[in-house]
Amino acid sequence: MARKTATTKRTDKPKAKRSTGARRKMTARPDSQGNGSAQTIGGYLIQRLQEHGVQDVFGIPGDFVLQFYGMLEESPIRVVGATREDCAGYAADAYARVNGLGVVCVTYCVGGLSLCNSIAGAFAEKSPVVVISGAPGIDERRNDPLLHHRVRDFNTQREVFEKITIASASLDDPLTAFREIDRCLEAAVRYKRPVYFEIPRDRVRAKALFPHVPAKVKLQSNKDALQAVLDEARERIQNAERPVIIAGIEIHRFGLRREVLKFAEAHNIPMASTLLGKSVVSEKHPLYLGVYEGAMGHEAVTKYVESSDCVILLGTFMTDINLGIYTARLDPGKAIYATSEKLRIGHHHFHDVLLEDFVKGLAKSKLKAHPKDKLPEKIVIRPKRSHDAEDPVTIASLFDHINDFLDEEMVVVADVGDSLFGSVDLQIHGHTEFISPAYYTSMGFAIPAAVGVQVANRKLRPIVLVGDGAFQMTCMELSTAVRQAFNPIVIVLNNKGYTTERFLQEGPFNDILDWNYHRMPDLLGDGWGFEVRSVGELKQSMQAALANQDAFSILNVHLEKDDISPALSRLASRMSKQI
Amino acid sequence: MARKTATTKRTDKPKAKRSTGARRKMTARPDSQGNGSAQTIGGYLIQRLQEHGVQDVFGIPGDFVLQFYGMLEESPIRVVGATREDCAGYAADAYARVNGLGVVCVTYCVGGLSLCNSIAGAFAEKSPVVVISGAPGIDERRNDPLLHHRVRDFNTQREVFEKITIASASLDDPLTAFREIDRCLEAAVRYKRPVYFEIPRDRVRAKALFPHVPAKVKLQSNKDALQAVLDEARERIQNAERPVIIAGIEIHRFGLRREVLKFAEAHNIPMASTLLGKSVVSEKHPLYLGVYEGAMGHEAVTKYVESSDCVILLGTFMTDINLGIYTARLDPGKAIYATSEKLRIGHHHFHDVLLEDFVKGLAKSKLKAHPKDKLPEKIVIRPKRSHDAEDPVTIASLFDHINDFLDEEMVVVADVGDSLFGSVDLQIHGHTEFISPAYYTSMGFAIPAAVGVQVANRKLRPIVLVGDGAFQMTCMELSTAVRQAFNPIVIVLNNKGYTTERFLQEGPFNDILDWNYHRMPDLLGDGWGFEVRSVGELKQSMQAALANQDAFSILNVHLEKDDISPALSRLASRMSKQI
Repeated sequence: MARKTATTKRTDKPKAKRSTGARRKMTARPDSQGNGSAQTIGGYLIQRLQEHGVQDVFGIPGDFVLQFYGMLEESPIRVVGATREDCAGYAADAYARVNGLGVVCVTYCVGGLSLCNSIAGAFAEKSPVVVISGAPGIDERRNDPLLHHRVRDFNTQREVFEKITIASASLDDPLTAFREIDRCLEAAVRYKRPVYFEIPRDRVRAKALFPHVPAKVKLQSNKDALQAVLDEARERIQNAERPVIIAGIEIHRFGLRREVLKFAEAHNIPMASTLLGKSVVSEKHPLYLGVYEGAMGHEAVTKYVESSDCVILLGTFMTDINLGIYTARLDPGKAIYATSEKLRIGHHHFHDVLLEDFVKGLAKSKLKAHPKDKLPEKIVIRPKRSHDAEDPVTIASLFDHINDFLDEEMVVVADVGDSLFGSVDLQIHGHTEFISPAYYTSMGFAIPAAVGVQVANRKLRPIVLVGDGAFQMTCMELSTAVRQAFNPIVIVLNNKGYTTERFLQEGPFNDILDWNYHRMPDLLGDGWGFEVRSVGELKQSMQAALANQDAFSILNVHLEKDDISPALSRLASRMSKQI
Repeated sequence: MARKTATTKRTDKPKAKRSTGARRKMTARPDSQGNGSAQTIGGYLIQRLQEHGVQDVFGIPGDFVLQFYGMLEESPIRVVGATREDCAGYAADAYARVNGLGVVCVTYCVGGLSLCNSIAGAFAEKSPVVVISGAPGIDERRNDPLLHHRVRDFNTQREVFEKITIASASLDDPLTAFREIDRCLEAAVRYKRPVYFEIPRDRVRAKALFPHVPAKVKLQSNKDALQAVLDEARERIQNAERPVIIAGIEIHRFGLRREVLKFAEAHNIPMASTLLGKSVVSEKHPLYLGVYEGAMGHEAVTKYVESSDCVILLGTFMTDINLGIYTARLDPGKAIYATSEKLRIGHHHFHDVLLEDFVKGLAKSKLKAHPKDKLPEKIVIRPKRSHDAEDPVTIASLFDHINDFLDEEMVVVADVGDSLFGSVDLQIHGHTEFISPAYYTSMGFAIPAAVGVQVANRKLRPIVLVGDGAFQMTCMELSTAVRQAFNPIVIVLNNKGYTTERFLQEGPFNDILDWNYHRMPDLLGDGWGFEVRSVGELKQSMQAALANQDAFSILNVHLEKDDISPALSRLASRMSKQI
């Protein structure tokens, strides 16, 4: 059942090792940053990225960006190659979710325009990814020649990225480039959205005309507005019978997890999360209820949240999927709603107050703690079920077993479809160890994202849940896992097609080819493959996969075409009304 | 050396067969086109596509486009599934190059934004591809909800495609939709560029408010300008000592090959082509010289063209690669330059004259034929070389052997790098049987394009030339070849990385993992794989591959890292000056 490919094939391993070697010190050489001598545009960009904690850049080289690649090689930043640009984009997105900021660096148009979907996803889900694209030199553009990779004119790619990033700049003039670098990076960190830089290849080493001093912008809330909203919030919470917190994705993005926990623990306020924000707080926490998603979610959680007289939504986005396709029943009049974009108590809207200041203010509150006896019974999300070794694997038994295997060192990276919806009830141990495109829901995210996770933190081990349709889109990125000697465990939910869509509208267009997914190691020259049909084979394969520390493992788990999780069946029946 | 995977794995073959069954008649059912009853927006779009000769649509379904997919299923048009949207885009591009118009149909944002690069390539190389994207219903958009797949707002995707298409429309209003369909399709055919349609899912079956009559626009040249330019051209050609034709890609796109041949043959004028236009005329034609590309090209061809006293450029784009990175020495004063966008004789520019009318006018010329004895000796592009069976395969011996295998039924589909540049000297038998992204040069084009070629014409057999780096980007599209029972012969030029770039700037970022490319059949469950190191193995594998009519064949051809074609080495040394 299991197969390991001879490692003799790993001819370029040494090279891969070299590029994955121990991190160099966080100091750059003068030649790459122009310390001592005048700063260069490329050198300054690299320096600022390092100051934002970036140690790795994902991408694929091309002639218009080779200048900058050469400069990256001279710097302490490591370049991690991918098989495709969109995969590099997904990896940078996941890296940003773990590390705080991610970077993808590609060539002009053939590279940049291949990033559109992954960057759009990062925009939608507030993941700060910095896109750096090479471009034809300014001097080459005279007389408007038809250079290779050109589309309509030399501005086409930048105009496209203006639509899917929060800030963008062409670093073509040393007079403005340094300020533009500060402006865009500040926007990425402030709004947690992607930004775009384009560097004409003849400007990479252009020198500053005068010494540039980085602009340090410090945002501040309006003091009186902050005081007013905190007073009103505290009063509501104090007088509430059964307050409850819904912690959303921004609590992670803005690093406010500790404050939320401090506030909840000090006042005995139970916490739920959303699908996009799942695992923002550890799901082992005694005050944790589960994922709230209206009628799509676990009944006990839905009941408790919707019967609360004070729902405190912190950093939560009201997306269709977070709200169970609008089946959520939350009375705005009874809610406190705070995100980086909106702040509202009941029907009072507050402006000029930063999410950080509001949440930190709550954490400092000295309210009377709610009596422990008012707390709900710990909701049992996943009743223990037993499965016979001979039984065929089902979605239910699959997720039961995955749940048993999870530990502190694991990150669940879920693709879309039942890889996502089936995961709702998984109990994540650590915090922010569930990563999924739960709002933008772009197929093919998971495998490259798992690579990004391990580049950001080698100690984390990804459990990748991916459907067969999504696997066929980006599976080749396991090549990068091999090069980097990473060891994700990839579980292919092989239900022979686009199962989610079968429940919306059946048709031959939902069928795909049934690959021998467990044979990927034969193609890549490394890794462990398992074909799984029964519960017994699943148990054995999972144990073997956990023991394989040196390379990726892949489980080809055969499922029935129409076997879906309760969450997905509820979702599908709801969505099919809108087709 | 060869391996064939047990076909018992081909569990979903019957399904695939069904979807590849014999073409249905070119008549649509009332329910899909609203004949009899009022027309629907979706039905009218399908009807117009059929009238433009479209029999197949490439794509991947998603909830926002399922309505339209359902309608396509009811129609005579066949839906061909791909593994990824960008692959569907490349396939539609190649289909358009063979068939005249191609269509790709995807869902909102996660689908559409994954198409940006392939559609940008079709724009750059003038391939008329129709993009059809689903979108959220107009009624769902009230109150601006955060629907899944949404990026910035509901216009984001359309605004992106406005930058990379020649015309675009949102078919959201039955009052304007029918005219918009006519307008955009006419633009696709007129300019040979991609167009974009977005259909909100609640408008697919919206009915015309009144019977719509398709607008038939017939463009016309200014008669006097046409007469003037023809007189001047004829006089120049008549008085020229050694006129020569350079036939470019537009001669194929506008279907003017016969006219060009008629004109050349009637007056004994030798013909060259460009890299992008290679095989516009059969390379076996007695008047054919070879590919002209300045200093990058074959010396004898360059000499003859540049010493001509009347160079007639027909439908040729002056791109950097077509002009050998601007090493071409063509005196505009001695040139006749005609494209769909420009018409110039010497320094006289002419407006309001259609390329078709000018070329057809030339074909009707009654000039004195140039004496046969003035014709150049047939230039021998590829001298016969012999290679020992034990010799390792080199770029030179590889292309020698491919050249020997080419016949009338084969299409060479070349990816970028040496797959393209090494092909310059291949002698293509038929016309337009060389397909490559020779201007936009996007890696990963070839394999999905080969699928598009066989969907358009089942009789053509693709010889796919692809580097290992490009292969890793879109190889999974061989899955579609298996589903469709296609039999392309894929030759992987395995030189262990991005070889073209090694000659511009060497660095570890040019290294990639060395896959067992010949093991793809094990993963996909069908196909033939060969590992090739020696000339003898190459010969045997090619013969076996030709004999395998039932499935794809793949040759993993090991090459030295630094073994490149003369054309590429000239190009690289030239380009490296600009890095």
